[in-house]
Amino acid sequence: MAEKIVKRADAERTITAILDAALRCFADGPEATVTQVAKAAGVGRVTVYGHFDSMEAIVGALLTRSLAEAEVMFDELDVESGTAASAVERLLHAPWILGRYRGLFEAGMRYLGPQRVRALHDQVFARIEAVVVRGREGGEFRTDLPLGWVMATVYALAHAAVVEADAGRLGVEEAADLLSVTLLGMLEPVQKMA
Amino acid sequence: MAEKIVKRADAERTITAILDAALRCFADGPEATVTQVAKAAGVGRVTVYGHFDSMEAIVGALLTRSLAEAEVMFDELDVESGTAASAVERLLHAPWILGRYRGLFEAGMRYLGPQRVRALHDQVFARIEAVVVRGREGGEFRTDLPLGWVMATVYALAHAAVVEADAGRLGVEEAADLLSVTLLGMLEPVQKMA
Repeated sequence: MAEKIVKRADAERTITAILDAALRCFADGPEATVTQVAKAAGVGRVTVYGHFDSMEAIVGALLTRSLAEAEVMFDELDVESGTAASAVERLLHAPWILGRYRGLFEAGMRYLGPQRVRALHDQVFARIEAVVVRGREGGEFRTDLPLGWVMATVYALAHAAVVEADAGRLGVEEAADLLSVTLLGMLEPVQKMA
Repeated sequence: MAEKIVKRADAERTITAILDAALRCFADGPEATVTQVAKAAGVGRVTVYGHFDSMEAIVGALLTRSLAEAEVMFDELDVESGTAASAVERLLHAPWILGRYRGLFEAGMRYLGPQRVRALHDQVFARIEAVVVRGREGGEFRTDLPLGWVMATVYALAHAAVVEADAGRLGVEEAADLLSVTLLGMLEPVQKMA
């Protein structure tokens, strides 16, 4: 029994090491192989294959873990309180979105494709959607665009900032600031100048 | 000599048939194999491999062809004349961007990855950038955001519309309308309501 628990703890440590190693590999580009990930994790290929069938499975597990981290961050940021606009600001300037998962979005696109990556975001996106809905219902945000489209644009702009930061075309802070200005500009009701 | 010309014309017809078949396959999902593309094109796998090394090569050639078609469309739409805003409207409601290449963006992400797909857009994007620059210089568009970021958002929002339309969450016309409203809202100078 005790042996079983030790074995499971060992397995969890190994899985953590493999996912951490995969993230380090993706920071250098999305073309990482199982062999490279195994080497970076300090384990053999056979060990990696003992836990993951393929690079697809590794990327899927890494995205799932990262999005679970994001959910914890959401609780810490208390996105349910204050104005919706201030909640969006807090979210976008949190460290999780930009820089922390360098290369992971690109790897997700390569190994899983846009639709599966989008589906993995469902739970986190429900939290963000709740903030947007609060802003719409409270009169802070414009309501003349369908919610589904607004969420699609939030997702697209957030990942545009990730891609620009990952490619080094924008600094992480600068990307967060521009994303915030652009997103709030899109969400808030506007009056065009004559 | 004449035989060579006939052979080359034959090869071009085969390449066209393969790319057309690949596009039909991607409309059903990005997981198409060389075998499926060959079958849809009515040729053997060996013929496909005679022209393309891999699915990556097929997707690259298909994207290159589609973007060349887009450039022809740009000339027809005369995006260099009229106001910049009207040029953006004409561009977004042209049939090329939504519906015509159903599934190709998803396939591009899977087989080439975001950075390579973005690089293939360089030439077309230079044309769109010229319209945006004209709008900024003429006072039609806001100038307080860096041009590089504005172009990244244009790219991201256009592909968000493509993804929503491809997934059937928005109709093609509706997607074009929403994209147009959102994009011009982002490009035009705004005055926030108090």
